[in-house]
Amino acid sequence: MNLYPMIPFEQAHATILAYAWPLPPVPVSIYDALGLVLAEEVRADAPIPPFPASAMDGYAVRAADGDALRRVVAAQWAGPAIEVTVGPGQATTITTGAPLPAGADAVIKVEDTAERDGVMTPRKAPRPGNHVRPVGEDVAAGEVVLAAGAVLGPAEIGVLAAIGRDRVLAHPRPRVAVLSTGDELVDAGEPCIPGQIRDSNRPALMAAAQQAGAHVLSLGIAGDDDEALAACVARGLSQADVLITSGGVSMGERDLSRVVIEGHAQVHFGQVAQKPGRPFVFATVQRPDGRAQLVFGLPGFPAASLVTFENHVRPALRALAGHTRLFRPPVRARLAHALDCTGQRVEFMRARIEHAHPERGDGDWWAEVTGRQTSGRVLSLVGANAFLQLEPGTSHYEPGDEVTAIRIDQPEE
Amino acid sequence: MNLYPMIPFEQAHATILAYAWPLPPVPVSIYDALGLVLAEEVRADAPIPPFPASAMDGYAVRAADGDALRRVVAAQWAGPAIEVTVGPGQATTITTGAPLPAGADAVIKVEDTAERDGVMTPRKAPRPGNHVRPVGEDVAAGEVVLAAGAVLGPAEIGVLAAIGRDRVLAHPRPRVAVLSTGDELVDAGEPCIPGQIRDSNRPALMAAAQQAGAHVLSLGIAGDDDEALAACVARGLSQADVLITSGGVSMGERDLSRVVIEGHAQVHFGQVAQKPGRPFVFATVQRPDGRAQLVFGLPGFPAASLVTFENHVRPALRALAGHTRLFRPPVRARLAHALDCTGQRVEFMRARIEHAHPERGDGDWWAEVTGRQTSGRVLSLVGANAFLQLEPGTSHYEPGDEVTAIRIDQPEE
Repeated sequence: MNLYPMIPFEQAHATILAYAWPLPPVPVSIYDALGLVLAEEVRADAPIPPFPASAMDGYAVRAADGDALRRVVAAQWAGPAIEVTVGPGQATTITTGAPLPAGADAVIKVEDTAERDGVMTPRKAPRPGNHVRPVGEDVAAGEVVLAAGAVLGPAEIGVLAAIGRDRVLAHPRPRVAVLSTGDELVDAGEPCIPGQIRDSNRPALMAAAQQAGAHVLSLGIAGDDDEALAACVARGLSQADVLITSGGVSMGERDLSRVVIEGHAQVHFGQVAQKPGRPFVFATVQRPDGRAQLVFGLPGFPAASLVTFENHVRPALRALAGHTRLFRPPVRARLAHALDCTGQRVEFMRARIEHAHPERGDGDWWAEVTGRQTSGRVLSLVGANAFLQLEPGTSHYEPGDEVTAIRIDQPEE
Repeated sequence: MNLYPMIPFEQAHATILAYAWPLPPVPVSIYDALGLVLAEEVRADAPIPPFPASAMDGYAVRAADGDALRRVVAAQWAGPAIEVTVGPGQATTITTGAPLPAGADAVIKVEDTAERDGVMTPRKAPRPGNHVRPVGEDVAAGEVVLAAGAVLGPAEIGVLAAIGRDRVLAHPRPRVAVLSTGDELVDAGEPCIPGQIRDSNRPALMAAAQQAGAHVLSLGIAGDDDEALAACVARGLSQADVLITSGGVSMGERDLSRVVIEGHAQVHFGQVAQKPGRPFVFATVQRPDGRAQLVFGLPGFPAASLVTFENHVRPALRALAGHTRLFRPPVRARLAHALDCTGQRVEFMRARIEHAHPERGDGDWWAEVTGRQTSGRVLSLVGANAFLQLEPGTSHYEPGDEVTAIRIDQPEE
């Protein structure tokens, strides 16, 4: 029997996040860094551009020569600087991005010139600095270009490359091991005999963990056998930061996941006042360095396991990865239809919300649930872009009533 | 010289998308399918559950026996069905998910029973079907569970596994080869000599392509050498669906990318009336099967290459992957400060927009540009969550003026 008291949703949430510390930073190549969270403040060693650079294709000149003809003495392409000094009455050709030769202080763009027999005629006199990008125009030497905590997207990776950093300290992706349990389960590609069903939780939870930015390891399916299950759990704990099981956490005597988790880890709770997701074990394994490995024993019903992943596991994975934005944005939405719920536990109904645009309607969000909301029906998540979060105390809603909708298709904020 | 006429932004956009057809579907394992677009309608061969299944831990009984005592004749765990028929006055123990034995038509949950010496006493009489999930409750045999075009997220992958499909037809990730060009460029990890700078475009564009769902291949840096550049381009075209170069597409005589692209592909345009991103080559290579490989010659300035990637390349990569939602959501935002722009070409300023919440402010979005907006300054993209799209015809805005803001941190809609 499940002897754990049922705890409120918020308490479950807070308990998990209290153990979900950012993973220790590691050096990462910028080519592997997309989506990671930077764990150091990054300053530029040198300015960008590191030399006065032409912003145009044209001629490098001395502005003091005004609109006089110039003798073209060399060509400076973008690339290594040539050994030349532009003297009075002289010019070099120059291309965009090329270093301004010594002696020159301006660029006249090619459209404003004519050249014949090695002599360039400008259409007008340049001013000093014309079309020259001064040293440090984009980044000053010593400037902080990225703060610790920055999420590394394409622009951030470009900045790191630009200042010559091909490795940075970042929080690594959490390693997540996923295990399904139950004698009734077979792999999706295998035939079933009567009494068996396909394991949908493991592929779904692996995809959800990958989508949350984790590095995922499959532990396969463990039957209802203490030793096999314990071996899988031990393997997961030896290779991953987070272990996710599904199934076997309910009230029956054969609910072995709970029992095996109890043998390996400290259980913090075993029942949560939510629907779906009431049978839900959270445990930790304390490491010698003071950090905790997280163990989630999710319910076996497919919709329940994905809902509790989204509620509790995803924010924890993001916290491990060093993110500070952990929660999907909520909006207030109006119900397109009447709705009954338990009124006892907080209930998460899968729904499609659509914004009625001010020009087309009333500017409100309208919500419609995705068919039958039973714990087993993973189809209730297909096409859903929100969870309606229905708080205890109300068991019936009328069409048009307002509820909170968590936008599960939007980035965390 | 760049002899291509400057074409409007919308024409560039439409030209590219006219060539960006969804890639031919391939069979994909559900374990590799996250984020892909399904290319077939998927029906369930068999119902789910495939047998009448217990929804609770308890006893499988005949409802007609009412609240009479039952002799417990067997144990049916979740797993292979045992050979037993529940006769009048009999019961089996049963666990959640287990097949209902022959003869039984209801489940009494364990909390509503007492058992002693192999005899179970129910607290109340069950009704037929109590706590039994009938065949096909979640999915009927032959039911369409996913439509062609569905984006495969965790729930969709769970549904596929549940119906026993471990492979499906999906549009593959586009293969994207990325090349930087220019004698001035060195790898981020290498030292620079005077006149050289680090190549930031290739790492940034590789990250952007990866973020857009592509499979990315680096072609490295090609110097300003026709043959080396041509070899890189040929290699990219032999291995990828899309080739992205940056640099060398401007007006100078050494702008070899354009010249080499002209030698390998049909150029559709070479200049676009936008800022940044005016020098921008789009070309295609016609394959024998009628499909086109796409070649993007992006500008060399770092901010310009990332802006044009977001404007033009990302929607094309999504179209190749079979997505129909290609565009980031626009909102109307008010300027937090005055703004000057060209007024000639459509201008994309990198900005941070914040929603002033109705309870805290006026409910509007407010926009602030991210510092200097020069084409070279990739820092202008750091922290930006929107592009302000400033249409030609207006060259000055006052604080509070409304503009269109493209939300580059939000999923396409």
